[in-house]
Amino acid sequence: AMDGYRGFLGLLVSALLVGFLAVVFSLVWVLHYREGLGWDGTALEFNWHPVFMVTGFVFIQGIAIIVYRLPWTWKCSKLLMKSIHAGLHTVAAILVIISLVSVFDYHNAGNIPNMYSLHSWVGLTVVILYILQLLLGVLVFLLPWAPLSLRALVMPMHVYSGLLIFGTVIATVLMGVTEKLIFGVSGYSSFPPEGVFANTLGLLNVVFGALIFWIVTRPQWQRPKEPNPILFQPNGGAREGAEGSAINFSHVDQSDSKLNNEVAAKKRNFSVDEAGQRSTM
Amino acid sequence: AMDGYRGFLGLLVSALLVGFLAVVFSLVWVLHYREGLGWDGTALEFNWHPVFMVTGFVFIQGIAIIVYRLPWTWKCSKLLMKSIHAGLHTVAAILVIISLVSVFDYHNAGNIPNMYSLHSWVGLTVVILYILQLLLGVLVFLLPWAPLSLRALVMPMHVYSGLLIFGTVIATVLMGVTEKLIFGVSGYSSFPPEGVFANTLGLLNVVFGALIFWIVTRPQWQRPKEPNPILFQPNGGAREGAEGSAINFSHVDQSDSKLNNEVAAKKRNFSVDEAGQRSTM
Repeated sequence: AMDGYRGFLGLLVSALLVGFLAVVFSLVWVLHYREGLGWDGTALEFNWHPVFMVTGFVFIQGIAIIVYRLPWTWKCSKLLMKSIHAGLHTVAAILVIISLVSVFDYHNAGNIPNMYSLHSWVGLTVVILYILQLLLGVLVFLLPWAPLSLRALVMPMHVYSGLLIFGTVIATVLMGVTEKLIFGVSGYSSFPPEGVFANTLGLLNVVFGALIFWIVTRPQWQRPKEPNPILFQPNGGAREGAEGSAINFSHVDQSDSKLNNEVAAKKRNFSVDEAGQRSTM
Repeated sequence: AMDGYRGFLGLLVSALLVGFLAVVFSLVWVLHYREGLGWDGTALEFNWHPVFMVTGFVFIQGIAIIVYRLPWTWKCSKLLMKSIHAGLHTVAAILVIISLVSVFDYHNAGNIPNMYSLHSWVGLTVVILYILQLLLGVLVFLLPWAPLSLRALVMPMHVYSGLLIFGTVIATVLMGVTEKLIFGVSGYSSFPPEGVFANTLGLLNVVFGALIFWIVTRPQWQRPKEPNPILFQPNGGAREGAEGSAINFSHVDQSDSKLNNEVAAKKRNFSVDEAGQRSTM
């Protein structure tokens, strides 16, 4: 158990480091290699776009995704954790919107057309989906009115679209870096320092995404479930617990349900023990 | 059950259609909007690069990923299905390598530098990882020598890296489309038909990826497991079945193991019934 905990901490610290480094790289890019920051319709204003996207849409969204996985929060109420999850996504959404305003302002001030690039098509779509996902999430999971059956129905889609949005955001960042380097850096093909530096920023985003995706799909780092009634949905849509939300690599064996139940029981005890142990941190 | 089956078929047909359309779009792009195809060191040779990447690295890889999900294959032996899975990935890998040769040939013939762009950094990394994943997969899962304990240990990483590679490939395609449009299409920002067309090709890749990701993460479309012995790994690495490979949205409730076991049993019967029913197709 302690080994698993250390493994988790190692991965979490790596993710935080890589994500923080990506934010620092986005800042160094615009402050050192580009024109700096400002809010005047020039490139200074555009430069908030990469900084706020990497900070909000990548780093903070990534943390929001794994916040239920932190073992020392397992003693906290589910409502508190949902509020932190929704709160972090809200902070991210605000940064994303400011970031969008900065790029539209810059385009409009300089008579550069909007919304012609693949980056902008995918990017705006994913911003709209992110805000819809946030509103739907608050409505169904945070506010108390939705029945458990609705929560059970929506949860698999919530998890799926959350991870799909997160992955698509990182793909959009890669397109944005590519665009900016081709438009803005003469001689990108002769390996100028700015090209190598911004490519590295792109790689940091990919590694951060890979770490978050690994952490969130490990079943052993899932928050233990609340003692809620289990719901049965006859149509096979969501037949299990209403609020268990992890994607994980599940292995239900057909051959021997007794052994399976032992495994499940062991796992449950393991998780509960760990929760007790970890909550003292 | 029949509703679930129709839902699966609908999604599968959508995925096949969108993926096929992406391949067609890549062909129309190079044949109608660009210079056509050839193997002479000019742009004609480069043009195989997008066509083979979308065909092999996106479409065929995507099919290979969901091949265990097809209900009418559940009566086929696991070995046959593994061979098809590995075979499709091998076909994809061959197309990917030809596709890489075409772009390096084109660059070298025209004295264009190699490996300076973020697209090339991420792309080459993911090609290397894909080939390693294929070799490791054949060694551990297809050939008969690996012990079940090793398979159980490697399987979660195999599934994780498979999906990570697939997602990163799609991100790399988006960067490639972006690069080619900025380099090759004068006036991309004034919405020329080629720009809109290639943007749409990018979107088709994203939608195909989203459909494959949804299909592969639904627990109800998972292949029923073989009657193999369950392995216990004391270190908590892979405590369940050795060959159960699906990522799914699992909901293990802590509160009531009896109810859980009923759910598991129901699910097992459900799957086995379905397998019998579907195998008559």
